[in-house]
Amino acid sequence: MLGPKGVITDAHEIEPWASDWRGRVHGQSAAILAPGSTEEVAEIVKLAAEHRVPLVPQGGNTGMAAGATPPADGSALLLSLRRMNRVRSISAESRLAVAEAGVILADLHERAHEIGMRFPLTLGARGSCTIGGLTSTNAGGTQVLKFGTMRSLVAGVEAVLPDGSIHCGLSGLKKDNRGYSLDQLLIGAEGTLGVVTAVALRLVPAIASRAVAWAGVASPEAALALLRFLEARTNSIEGFELVPQDSLQLVLHHIPGTRSPLSGEHPWHALVEATTADPKHDINGEIEALLGAALEHGLIGDAVIAANEAQAEAFWKLRDSISEAERAEGQTLAHDISVPVAGMPRFITDASAEVERAFPGVVASGFGHLGDGNIHFHARAGSHAAPDWYEAEGAAITRMVDDLVTAAGGSISAEHGIGQLKREEFARLAPPGRIHALRAIKQALDPLGIMNPGKLVP
Amino acid sequence: MLGPKGVITDAHEIEPWASDWRGRVHGQSAAILAPGSTEEVAEIVKLAAEHRVPLVPQGGNTGMAAGATPPADGSALLLSLRRMNRVRSISAESRLAVAEAGVILADLHERAHEIGMRFPLTLGARGSCTIGGLTSTNAGGTQVLKFGTMRSLVAGVEAVLPDGSIHCGLSGLKKDNRGYSLDQLLIGAEGTLGVVTAVALRLVPAIASRAVAWAGVASPEAALALLRFLEARTNSIEGFELVPQDSLQLVLHHIPGTRSPLSGEHPWHALVEATTADPKHDINGEIEALLGAALEHGLIGDAVIAANEAQAEAFWKLRDSISEAERAEGQTLAHDISVPVAGMPRFITDASAEVERAFPGVVASGFGHLGDGNIHFHARAGSHAAPDWYEAEGAAITRMVDDLVTAAGGSISAEHGIGQLKREEFARLAPPGRIHALRAIKQALDPLGIMNPGKLVP
Repeated sequence: MLGPKGVITDAHEIEPWASDWRGRVHGQSAAILAPGSTEEVAEIVKLAAEHRVPLVPQGGNTGMAAGATPPADGSALLLSLRRMNRVRSISAESRLAVAEAGVILADLHERAHEIGMRFPLTLGARGSCTIGGLTSTNAGGTQVLKFGTMRSLVAGVEAVLPDGSIHCGLSGLKKDNRGYSLDQLLIGAEGTLGVVTAVALRLVPAIASRAVAWAGVASPEAALALLRFLEARTNSIEGFELVPQDSLQLVLHHIPGTRSPLSGEHPWHALVEATTADPKHDINGEIEALLGAALEHGLIGDAVIAANEAQAEAFWKLRDSISEAERAEGQTLAHDISVPVAGMPRFITDASAEVERAFPGVVASGFGHLGDGNIHFHARAGSHAAPDWYEAEGAAITRMVDDLVTAAGGSISAEHGIGQLKREEFARLAPPGRIHALRAIKQALDPLGIMNPGKLVP
Repeated sequence: MLGPKGVITDAHEIEPWASDWRGRVHGQSAAILAPGSTEEVAEIVKLAAEHRVPLVPQGGNTGMAAGATPPADGSALLLSLRRMNRVRSISAESRLAVAEAGVILADLHERAHEIGMRFPLTLGARGSCTIGGLTSTNAGGTQVLKFGTMRSLVAGVEAVLPDGSIHCGLSGLKKDNRGYSLDQLLIGAEGTLGVVTAVALRLVPAIASRAVAWAGVASPEAALALLRFLEARTNSIEGFELVPQDSLQLVLHHIPGTRSPLSGEHPWHALVEATTADPKHDINGEIEALLGAALEHGLIGDAVIAANEAQAEAFWKLRDSISEAERAEGQTLAHDISVPVAGMPRFITDASAEVERAFPGVVASGFGHLGDGNIHFHARAGSHAAPDWYEAEGAAITRMVDDLVTAAGGSISAEHGIGQLKREEFARLAPPGRIHALRAIKQALDPLGIMNPGKLVP
């Protein structure tokens, strides 16, 4: 059935795909199956069901929760979707693209650009992450504020269900009320309910121009007030990232060629991106006027708009280098969490104080997608921390952060999913009724337990 | 547990709620249970599970598929959510409202309006339909083009699951990747997987002004070309309804006080609504200029913009009176169907011709939400049809329409759901894998079969 390209058994070729990309979790697999079509995926799933061999679907292997890493006992086979990398159709008129699971995000960006359109979701791994993985993890990124996560960008899903049947939801119907949405159930299911083989995706008109601004603010509350102020006056805001002074300092210290956008010091910073698809719209003028008004209202201390694309990229580089700068400084523990947007400023302040009080020497801070109520809450070991700090204190700090998030009505996984790494905490904190429902759905659709076992469902 | 208002056993009081509002399906129920809180709903569900008594959740009883009508054998109790009619919170800042299941749509519109916001979904039954019913049927309406169906407007669901546990998804998190989305599973589940008790809903800024235009076009193809032309030049288009000349004539003939917006005759018509939230935006000027350009491009034969709100309402009345005018003319068979937008013009032309050829004397036509790929495809008996035409030929015509829709990659239920009335056709036409998956999910979450039995799942 599978051609010579379709089965990889060379241990050296398998090895990089058997560990998660952060190198934290190491699995084993006797082979990678790499089908070239949906029909081949269906054949593989039927055989897997017949022989009770678990499958671990995998795209670009860029996940943050080890959701695509096989178990260590070698009991499962990797099912790579990377060879299924065709854009089956793309249309500016219907504003839809149908992309196979293995299409790389950056390639889809390019294909959309060629027809004057845009797929409005992006993230750091865009050069290697795949559409199937993005769908299965309901990925987010920096443009969720305006366009939502994958869940709101997916117009239909094609998938092979655990019984080997093909679910086809690719017709891109805008209205379809024929019962439970299998499409929505498969989005974010991390491959535990079936294998996503292709997705219909919404496109939007290409960006004509953008304005990128950097503002110094007094507090997370002030940053949120600035966002509300802008949102009430324009619908061009597409990104709104919060950066603490402490994180900016680390970037300036560790990342070569960076410089602070503002001359003075500010306790917090907001990186604002506004875009327009209308070539006649003076987006820089609009944002400049709005920031001027925000300054008059006392919402910000200072602000600057990038004078050109190079400067815009330099502003974004400051934001995007925070994790790297933190790692250069020492051991860091990252938490991808969300709380209701209105409660985020208070959460950042209170949770940081509480973690620093409970774990002396630790520096806690939150940065990221303030407008989505999603920040990356990091705890950094003090410079004199023991080399085993991560192993010694990490789990206790994570439990504390997760407890604080849960108490604030938030989520312990905002955009990275549960995978293997958050399963224990998910089991500890989710309401029993929810766990029961998830287990029942998993058991109903995958009674043999062959789809990505040991992931997501506690 | 339930107070005196909470249990209704008077047969006369029950009777209007035991039939669907079109009076087609008649059920029986010994009582209506009308809880006042989520906790009371949970108690009722637990008791129902203990005693194996099926429950039929009901809101305003305005559904089109008899999905809230109890079975005829009297085996089930009605569970009315109408007493749960509080708007728990509403905020212009967070752009969210939390409404209980029994809140009437028109009341929510008013509450949003009071704070300068808007809940952008509306439909004919807005004075009596409820938020719970709208969620459970994933309702659509005339503004889906811009804002989507309920599925894209619901930010979170609170529901009582069939085991009596309370699922709370009301925190309105913008990013939350903790496993399968129960919220999305409950939306459109027609009360078969649990009882929706409250919903967090997205709000948008209130409309500052609107432009309503009527254009005469040569064909459904021309109407779609006009829509594409407008959409490529503005993002203000919110409604785009297709009206055939034949339907307009029926309205002018049967509905008092109506007149044609255009002086000449056109084979087809498009009703266009554009809105803006920006008081400075001259929406009438923009649409007038665009229609002028469309005229020059030969896309339309003629067009007129409503000079004031009264005229705008008069234009909409023409569209909204089509079903009533058809009923006045004689027996009519309605189909709420969707196909991919690009394929809709051809579907309307071909399917009408095919039905009229197969059933001599029948007049077939499609009207409605062209921009959503969703039309109401109606078949009208000739004036000399026998009184039992509906019973004699109706099922055969419906099967033919449903076959044509399925062949075109469409849905036999675009916005009305499956309920009781479309269950047989759904079972006939859905892929076996899909039916299998739906049954497995239903059995997994409601193993006792107490939640709205006999609905949706074939």
